[in-house]
Amino acid sequence: MPTEKPKRAPKQDRSVQTRQRILDEALRLFAAHGFEGVGIRDVSAAAGVNHGLIKYHFGDKDTLWRESVQQLFERADRELAVPAEMEGQPVERQFEIFIRRYVRYCAAYPEHARLMVQESVRDSERLAWAAKRFIAPEHGGVLPAIKSLIRRGIMPDVEPVLMIYMLSSAAQAPFMLAPELKHTHGVDALDEASVQAHADAMVAVFLGRRGTTST
Amino acid sequence: MPTEKPKRAPKQDRSVQTRQRILDEALRLFAAHGFEGVGIRDVSAAAGVNHGLIKYHFGDKDTLWRESVQQLFERADRELAVPAEMEGQPVERQFEIFIRRYVRYCAAYPEHARLMVQESVRDSERLAWAAKRFIAPEHGGVLPAIKSLIRRGIMPDVEPVLMIYMLSSAAQAPFMLAPELKHTHGVDALDEASVQAHADAMVAVFLGRRGTTST
Repeated sequence: MPTEKPKRAPKQDRSVQTRQRILDEALRLFAAHGFEGVGIRDVSAAAGVNHGLIKYHFGDKDTLWRESVQQLFERADRELAVPAEMEGQPVERQFEIFIRRYVRYCAAYPEHARLMVQESVRDSERLAWAAKRFIAPEHGGVLPAIKSLIRRGIMPDVEPVLMIYMLSSAAQAPFMLAPELKHTHGVDALDEASVQAHADAMVAVFLGRRGTTST
Repeated sequence: MPTEKPKRAPKQDRSVQTRQRILDEALRLFAAHGFEGVGIRDVSAAAGVNHGLIKYHFGDKDTLWRESVQQLFERADRELAVPAEMEGQPVERQFEIFIRRYVRYCAAYPEHARLMVQESVRDSERLAWAAKRFIAPEHGGVLPAIKSLIRRGIMPDVEPVLMIYMLSSAAQAPFMLAPELKHTHGVDALDEASVQAHADAMVAVFLGRRGTTST
């Protein structure tokens, strides 16, 4: 017979929160040091949980990596989905909004770009898995808009896949390299004015706003 | 059949070659694993030399890092210098040659971009040193051309420092992420046709060749 319980976080919720904290710390560490450079004990220390709990939740390090990467890409999908009110707008307007949202995403989660660089230092079965399961569908979602913009002369006529790589890495650059930018030019890439300036710059370069700043 | 003794490199030359091999392996390892992820013993194993020899040549790991980074930037300077025969050409033509050479440089030395990403994961005094000593002068050499191209409407009117970061990271992207690109799209970024296509794409995007492929 069920009984009423006091209003503290139920055991199951706390377990969900702990799991989440483990995934967040794992992702941060994998992005900083690469898969080989991180042990389950590093993650348990960073998340402030018992080593055995990570084994209980995730089994081994490979599964922990996959689950944290899955969560990363699912969050990206949510944050970058074109808002419903944009549907029916011209593709160049939709793509401008996408670029601006993507720049904000890169500023908020620089670990995403760092993780992909770490995994691309050495090829791996993990990377093949992530490419097939997350990156290919993500790129597949963006390619029709890029092809349409190229066809209409709004983007230059280059290989659309190369356009994706140029666009995404240019969006990530000031945030992924923020300490370098700070030391070299005294600019804080993460302050609000810089993020806004970079979103404007991206729209200008990739949607061909020659001779105007689109503020 | 008369035999001659093979010509052995004189002792001093061999020492220079050994030093070079140590620097090359150190750079490759630092770029792959970050400063903290590499020990002098890893470098000695990779270079096939005695641990004590590295101490003899370089003292400590910090000095080894700085010497390998200095060599990296000096090589970049040599490979990217505008050839003498280009002087007097219009700035947009010179800059197109610069972009094409830079794309080839990125394909040949992906460890350069990886090293800067590794160092920007955590800020450090080493990074401050490299920024002041190498990156600031390198960017200072490119800024006047970018400003001139912006003034004349050939490049879009964006913050010139952001233009440097967009341009350099877009140039690096397919090579730094070559395994991802391979798994996701089946493309080998490092084959000659892909390098050429990427150089064309960079010129099209950053020098505003709208609606034409510049092959």
